Amino acid sequence: RINGNRLWASLMELAQIGATPKGGVKRLALTDLDKQGRDLVVSWAKQAGLTVTIDQIGNVFMRRAGKNPALPPIMSGSHIDTQPTGGKFDGNYGVLAALEVVRTLNDHNIETEAPIEVAFWTNEEGSRFVPVMMGSGVFCGAFTLEHAYAAKDTEGKTVGDELERIGYKGTEVPGQHPIGAYFETHIEQGPVLEDADKVIGVVPGVLGLSWYDCVVTGMEAHAGPTPMALRKDALQISTKIMQEVVNIGNRYPPYGRGTVGMVQVFPNSRNVIPGEVKFSIDLRNVSSELLDTMHNEILAFVDKTSKDSGLNISVERVSYYPPCPFHPDCVNAVREATATLGYSTMDVVSGAGHDAIYTARLAPSGMIFVPCKDGISHNEIEDAKSEHLEAGCNVLLHAMLGRAGV
Amino acid sequence: RINGNRLWASLMELAQIGATPKGGVKRLALTDLDKQGRDLVVSWAKQAGLTVTIDQIGNVFMRRAGKNPALPPIMSGSHIDTQPTGGKFDGNYGVLAALEVVRTLNDHNIETEAPIEVAFWTNEEGSRFVPVMMGSGVFCGAFTLEHAYAAKDTEGKTVGDELERIGYKGTEVPGQHPIGAYFETHIEQGPVLEDADKVIGVVPGVLGLSWYDCVVTGMEAHAGPTPMALRKDALQISTKIMQEVVNIGNRYPPYGRGTVGMVQVFPNSRNVIPGEVKFSIDLRNVSSELLDTMHNEILAFVDKTSKDSGLNISVERVSYYPPCPFHPDCVNAVREATATLGYSTMDVVSGAGHDAIYTARLAPSGMIFVPCKDGISHNEIEDAKSEHLEAGCNVLLHAMLGRAGV
Ligand SMILES: NC(=O)NCCC(=O)O
Ligand SMILES: NC(=O)NCCC(=O)O
Repeated sequence: RINGNRLWASLMELAQIGATPKGGVKRLALTDLDKQGRDLVVSWAKQAGLTVTIDQIGNVFMRRAGKNPALPPIMSGSHIDTQPTGGKFDGNYGVLAALEVVRTLNDHNIETEAPIEVAFWTNEEGSRFVPVMMGSGVFCGAFTLEHAYAAKDTEGKTVGDELERIGYKGTEVPGQHPIGAYFETHIEQGPVLEDADKVIGVVPGVLGLSWYDCVVTGMEAHAGPTPMALRKDALQISTKIMQEVVNIGNRYPPYGRGTVGMVQVFPNSRNVIPGEVKFSIDLRNVSSELLDTMHNEILAFVDKTSKDSGLNISVERVSYYPPCPFHPDCVNAVREATATLGYSTMDVVSGAGHDAIYTARLAPSGMIFVPCKDGISHNEIEDAKSEHLEAGCNVLLHAMLGRAGV
Repeated sequence: RINGNRLWASLMELAQIGATPKGGVKRLALTDLDKQGRDLVVSWAKQAGLTVTIDQIGNVFMRRAGKNPALPPIMSGSHIDTQPTGGKFDGNYGVLAALEVVRTLNDHNIETEAPIEVAFWTNEEGSRFVPVMMGSGVFCGAFTLEHAYAAKDTEGKTVGDELERIGYKGTEVPGQHPIGAYFETHIEQGPVLEDADKVIGVVPGVLGLSWYDCVVTGMEAHAGPTPMALRKDALQISTKIMQEVVNIGNRYPPYGRGTVGMVQVFPNSRNVIPGEVKFSIDLRNVSSELLDTMHNEILAFVDKTSKDSGLNISVERVSYYPPCPFHPDCVNAVREATATLGYSTMDVVSGAGHDAIYTARLAPSGMIFVPCKDGISHNEIEDAKSEHLEAGCNVLLHAMLGRAGV
């Protein structure tokens, strides 16, 4: 069993770096605060006797030797960068839970067959630099190192320069690092476990996700003198599409999701009929077939709405992550560890993307979820119970030991 | 007949002050540019032999004496402040058309029974300081001088201080100035005249207007892990109300108007279900009864939507101007002048508020509309034809002479 108090203490100590007045954390990727956070985790790793390797995109791997150095390491980790108004647990829990596994093995002088590694990946959140899950994305070859280096923040600073500046541009070629299996513990970021009053979520996979930008172009005009029949109201036409996005999400339960999260209205003045509306569309589902169906339905609806209204409507796909089923061996390892430990459990498909969807392209991967308060994350009030975090970490310990061999 | 070229030349000269690269004008109320514009118009008035009076809210009255000084003046005017990205004609045309009437009377040495006055009102646009139509509003007692003086721009500067600074805080008590009748020429700011290919719009009145702020409060949550059934999506519920606003506008033709012009979504992030949406509602109609019906319908709909969805929805009325029928004598004066001059014409109820709705509370008032290109105003590309502006000014001349007596 791991030491829940030590895990909690480390989480609280790391959360001091970039702590916000409302109890959250603001530690954006590759800032001075990110450097401080990285330095702290690395210093803990060194205290625990781990060997540290950094790759060219700033992913950090911290190794505890195994009896058989030829075996690829059993790895666990996540990220320590946060949202601008983020919480203490998202990402950080995954990294510190892995560190706690190592500390527990040290406490008990347990030697594993395969090496054990703790990892943190660069810029998972994507708040300062797009795309999200950058470090693990470069690692698995989803996009190139050059592409990632060139990404700019709003001030024009690049990932390449900022990595150099904070001293985390390593030398190892991304993706060259061997992985035997990868486990990631994470708060659920949704309400399902809490709603069902379960402690451990076994994660069979991650929903596929399709993101779009939609632009409806009407004609800006004065709200008073323009008769209803002569209007080209971009917002009214947009509301039809916004409703269909949710209808499509509802049409494919239980894993269908349809969300409009971002809207910009031009010129956004009380007495001007909107001439242009831009909004985002986020569609998700558990299988490629269902996600393709949802994709086709929104495109057909936009097309019909444009024809019916006579307004120009563009819809462009800006991101796509296919559904990611995790490796049955890893899913079973988590399920068995949970059963052994006797925690209440259920399967929870992850609705959000995580670094594990990229590692899954290279090595058997799996995830362990624990509840978070009211399902809230990406928020300073993000909260989780110490006993749940401890339980998730115990499951991780057992799953990793099972794979690594004692 | 007035001198169309002189009118056009004056419009173009005034439009130099605050001219924008795209051919518009930015001359916000009580700025240095407003002072320059006011000084230019006042200098023209003095050249034309007019006597200038300024009241405490900065409204300027420029008088051409009549044979009978005891008679209240027949007045015409509008405003010279503009929107931040405004055009050359909105307001300015009304002021310079009135000046052109005076110049024409001077050319022909015509003496009128009643005095003739040219007026411009302070801060009609309301872009820098709220409320809109401030000068004429104080003049007619819609709100107090103190209330207007205290209004602040975004930098915290007050109307009182800025009037003082630019030298237009006069001494006359607002509303003390007598008015026999008031006429205002204006571009239509809508597409109706152009659509019907008519030159002169006779304005029987102005639509009543009711403005609301609506706030829908849901629960912010991650778009991926939150199942559709557990969401409180503030935007989805808002789209129902946004559609009903337009439905209500359509339900009461031909003068019903329903517009949502301004929308703010929180936190406005692609993968976050909106937790709060604020938007404006603008309802208009020609009679108080119809406007009241529309008011009751939107309130009832919001109430039902809140009950059905379980979300908290607040809707607050932030402005109300009752419908303003113009005085039959003034409307007929415009109609007869148009007939005498032989211009093509139709009645056009004004959809937008103007200073004339406030003067109408104190004296018989009326308006004359001319077409503007594509119905566009409050825009740098606002445009109008010289021949239409000339026609409107001729109608004004005849209407004023009819009331003033020769
Ligand atoms: N975990 C997380 O918030 N990932 C960002 C991408 C997504 O919206 O799923
Ligand atoms: N003329 C004008 O734009 N007035 C502003 C108030 C309104 O929206 O009617």
